[in-house]
Amino acid sequence: MKRRHLLASAGAAATLAACSKRAPEPAVAVHNWKLVTSWQGQFPVLAAAAERLAEQIGIASAGRLRVQVFAGNELVAPFEVFDAVASGKAEMGHSAAYFWRSKSPAAPFFCAVPFGLNAQEMNAWLQHGGGMSLWRELYARFNLVPFAAGNTGVQMAGWFNRELTSVADLKGLKMRIPGLGGEVMSRLGAQAVNLPGAEIASAMQSGAIDACEWLGPHNDEIFGLFRVAKYCYYPGWQEPGPTLECIVNQQAFDSLPADLQAVVELCCRALNDDMLAEFTARNQRALKDLREEHHVEFRRLPDSILAALRETSELLLRELVGDDGLARRVLESFSAFRDQSRAWHAISEIPYYEARE
Amino acid sequence: MKRRHLLASAGAAATLAACSKRAPEPAVAVHNWKLVTSWQGQFPVLAAAAERLAEQIGIASAGRLRVQVFAGNELVAPFEVFDAVASGKAEMGHSAAYFWRSKSPAAPFFCAVPFGLNAQEMNAWLQHGGGMSLWRELYARFNLVPFAAGNTGVQMAGWFNRELTSVADLKGLKMRIPGLGGEVMSRLGAQAVNLPGAEIASAMQSGAIDACEWLGPHNDEIFGLFRVAKYCYYPGWQEPGPTLECIVNQQAFDSLPADLQAVVELCCRALNDDMLAEFTARNQRALKDLREEHHVEFRRLPDSILAALRETSELLLRELVGDDGLARRVLESFSAFRDQSRAWHAISEIPYYEARE
Repeated sequence: MKRRHLLASAGAAATLAACSKRAPEPAVAVHNWKLVTSWQGQFPVLAAAAERLAEQIGIASAGRLRVQVFAGNELVAPFEVFDAVASGKAEMGHSAAYFWRSKSPAAPFFCAVPFGLNAQEMNAWLQHGGGMSLWRELYARFNLVPFAAGNTGVQMAGWFNRELTSVADLKGLKMRIPGLGGEVMSRLGAQAVNLPGAEIASAMQSGAIDACEWLGPHNDEIFGLFRVAKYCYYPGWQEPGPTLECIVNQQAFDSLPADLQAVVELCCRALNDDMLAEFTARNQRALKDLREEHHVEFRRLPDSILAALRETSELLLRELVGDDGLARRVLESFSAFRDQSRAWHAISEIPYYEARE
Repeated sequence: MKRRHLLASAGAAATLAACSKRAPEPAVAVHNWKLVTSWQGQFPVLAAAAERLAEQIGIASAGRLRVQVFAGNELVAPFEVFDAVASGKAEMGHSAAYFWRSKSPAAPFFCAVPFGLNAQEMNAWLQHGGGMSLWRELYARFNLVPFAAGNTGVQMAGWFNRELTSVADLKGLKMRIPGLGGEVMSRLGAQAVNLPGAEIASAMQSGAIDACEWLGPHNDEIFGLFRVAKYCYYPGWQEPGPTLECIVNQQAFDSLPADLQAVVELCCRALNDDMLAEFTARNQRALKDLREEHHVEFRRLPDSILAALRETSELLLRELVGDDGLARRVLESFSAFRDQSRAWHAISEIPYYEARE
């Protein structure tokens, strides 16, 4: 095991000493990697992020680690990224851990769960609250090394053609909402369906579905969802701050010298920092457009609906982990951290936002 | 000018191609840099961050860029960092732009101003809202290349031995609060003083001052401020999300090959991501300690005081920029971005925090 995790490394100084004493290599060893992603053309920020990750690795390694990016379905299907990297068909992947629930009920916690952590809290839990070591433990079972590599920030609850006043309004609602959020909605009487992003707008228009959630103002504007729905409801209880992942095949990672391992980790951290900044800036510009040019009505979900969603979500998470030992430890760590985050943000971010209004 | 800004680089692909075609160097060129900081022993997270930045650069460059860290007063005084790096006495510095107000009234906006942007918004403004190009324009005048390299998150309003119920309670209050926050307090009748961190607790104990602000639960606990004050007030209106800076001497930066320039920028971005995560995790743990073990009473500043602080702050910022052309452009860009951020967070982060309670 030659894995070295730069940002948490105890032996980093020793590594550096070893690096600097090393004689110059007679020839430059070049590593050629494939990066498969779950993103197709309809994910503008995410697809561009994977390209930038590859580009940055190329520059910072002076071309010694060359990464070729394959969009979803170019080399493997979007939901085959995990297996493709685990098996070594590709060395690297950019995706989201909540797609891998069938691999382990612990997986979604490393991306987003309903009423979970927001972006700032996810980063704090992963990097300084014990989350990352649990993530590494889980993914090591699959021959993978995980890195946090991006965050969308809190999303929207979704687009609706029906006004929502109480939980009864969810009954029979046909809504495009995948994953755990969809299960919560189903338990409250809705009919949750999954559809590829590109099909959402036409399904709304034809009346095949009554409601949908996608991502946030920037991406939703690109899809024209404001043309097919009357209301946009908030907040995005189902995805409060999804962490995107970069996964690396264990043997591929071990084959890199320490400096290139560090370059991979640093590029992921830089992307993690940058993507939230990009989504924040793009979403707030798009919000202005949606309001001023397209006259979209943004509405807050009623308290009674939020309370029902929250209660149902908590039950679902406990059922999800069941008696899986690692998943239970992940839920415990995550929940304890969330309790502390709630107490901290009640005297920091929340009152600051209020004071600034 | 060979500067290449990796994360915003238009010609990045061309650079990569150039790198990968380059013949291997016959011998490894080693750059030895000095990194001066404004942090002394009493800044545990910040001082450690500068050390980690240097260490990461060493690892990711395989020892080709070796950075030696000097704490405040080891090579230059804490507030001489800017001049030391500008003149080339040191190649690199880790500090905070609000210390350099005497260089330009625009400088504080790149760190923190009262009622300004929080951490997430600072990152969005700098990286995707036009802030970074203004920062580069300003610092280029001083022969410096700036990078965002850390954020403390929102701080606390401070520690008080007097209960605050209205603006009248600020009259005559002797408070350790430096910078723009101190000026706002002075305008409202307080006597703002500056003291080095290490002297705050004893000044509180002797009654030389009645109140103080330092950083947040983690750092304040280390200083034992809970032993010398009755109340801790929030939120930290004066420092809602201070960005720390890494500054690099222009000629030193230009002397690096493109891959090492990228390594420097990536290490700064990684630190920017990591420090906020670290402060968030440490502050929330410290908050638990302060409440449960030391029975600290946390109180929200009354609305009337917050309103007076906010109004005074806005006036001060306009006076600060005066007729300085660049500073006016910075204030305009910053204020316009803040308006959009307020609208966006009113339907995203704020209602999510509320829904989760």
